[in-house]
Amino acid sequence: MADGTGIETLIDLMARLPGLGPRSARRAVLAMLKKRAQLMAPLAQALAEVALSAKDCRVCGNISTTDLCPICTDPARATGEICVVEDVADLWAMERGQAFRGRYHLLGGTLSALDGIGPEDLGIPRLVSRVAEESTREVILALNATVDGQTTAHYIADALAGTQAQITTLAQGVPVGGELDYLDDGTIGAALRARRRL
Amino acid sequence: MADGTGIETLIDLMARLPGLGPRSARRAVLAMLKKRAQLMAPLAQALAEVALSAKDCRVCGNISTTDLCPICTDPARATGEICVVEDVADLWAMERGQAFRGRYHLLGGTLSALDGIGPEDLGIPRLVSRVAEESTREVILALNATVDGQTTAHYIADALAGTQAQITTLAQGVPVGGELDYLDDGTIGAALRARRRL
Ligand SMILES: [Zn+2]
Ligand SMILES: [Zn+2]
Repeated sequence: MADGTGIETLIDLMARLPGLGPRSARRAVLAMLKKRAQLMAPLAQALAEVALSAKDCRVCGNISTTDLCPICTDPARATGEICVVEDVADLWAMERGQAFRGRYHLLGGTLSALDGIGPEDLGIPRLVSRVAEESTREVILALNATVDGQTTAHYIADALAGTQAQITTLAQGVPVGGELDYLDDGTIGAALRARRRL
Repeated sequence: MADGTGIETLIDLMARLPGLGPRSARRAVLAMLKKRAQLMAPLAQALAEVALSAKDCRVCGNISTTDLCPICTDPARATGEICVVEDVADLWAMERGQAFRGRYHLLGGTLSALDGIGPEDLGIPRLVSRVAEESTREVILALNATVDGQTTAHYIADALAGTQAQITTLAQGVPVGGELDYLDDGTIGAALRARRRL
């Protein structure tokens, strides 16, 4: 490489981002070097700010740059519905769907005896008291359709059984635009069992 | 998006890097949020440093974080050979080849009447005096095999005609590992004309 100092370090760090390898990291750094004022400096600034101020929302666990995340402070989202997701990636995916207008609870993982992750690590006791305090009408369990995800969902449903909240989960079925040919058998089976009259 | 503040700005800026779209920018930012101390903070630091200190080497035009780039200050590279390239991307490509051990001259573009780019804009007069001062033995023109690249190469060859330096260009031919099937006709023609006895 051409530079024994900062530029090489920068390329090495960029190459550690998902989806970027050494080659695309080089291209990205070159692009930034050509736009130092318009791109590199603002990006450095934005990264430093987020690195410094990003924190877990103390109500829902969402990551934002404020103590309470914008979702928890949005009065329009006090709908009495809480959507339980595993992590920020899933929250962002739900938000892109633009269908849910309530608030969230982030677990930060799934129950795992193997990894020693118990209900307290996922904030499940906190969810139970939150549901009572907020008189939550519905808790939607939007967990991954994996064994760990489903084990966790059942545990949470049991823990909330004594509250007033109705517990629901996302429907399983054929994705919008999905071709049957490309779906795994489990999805087709679930979609068939949940079939609706047209 | 989940956050009305810094995180969204960061994703927007990341999405402007080549090879990254909104989707991969989100994934990259998520990965950084999960590794704030190990990845995000060092990256912010490296970016800020480079954004602040990156400059054009005043001898060759290479970008580095020092006044003179590491190549121009490396005594082992005072070989009397200067390789003329269009930009930093080409210099890095040459360096990855690990075949050239001399120094560089970066044009920063090619001659273009249309865009009003003349010899002075590319530092060609400076190259001519540098070749005289450094008693350069050979100037290798490693310009792109485009019309503009070749026009610029011929102009530089003419400008250096009065100096002691020998002027050479990179050979054209089949890339190592290249399949004939995938090569354009011009490359095959050039490779055939430059054929060597086995
Ligand atoms: Zn929140
Ligand atoms: Zn230099």
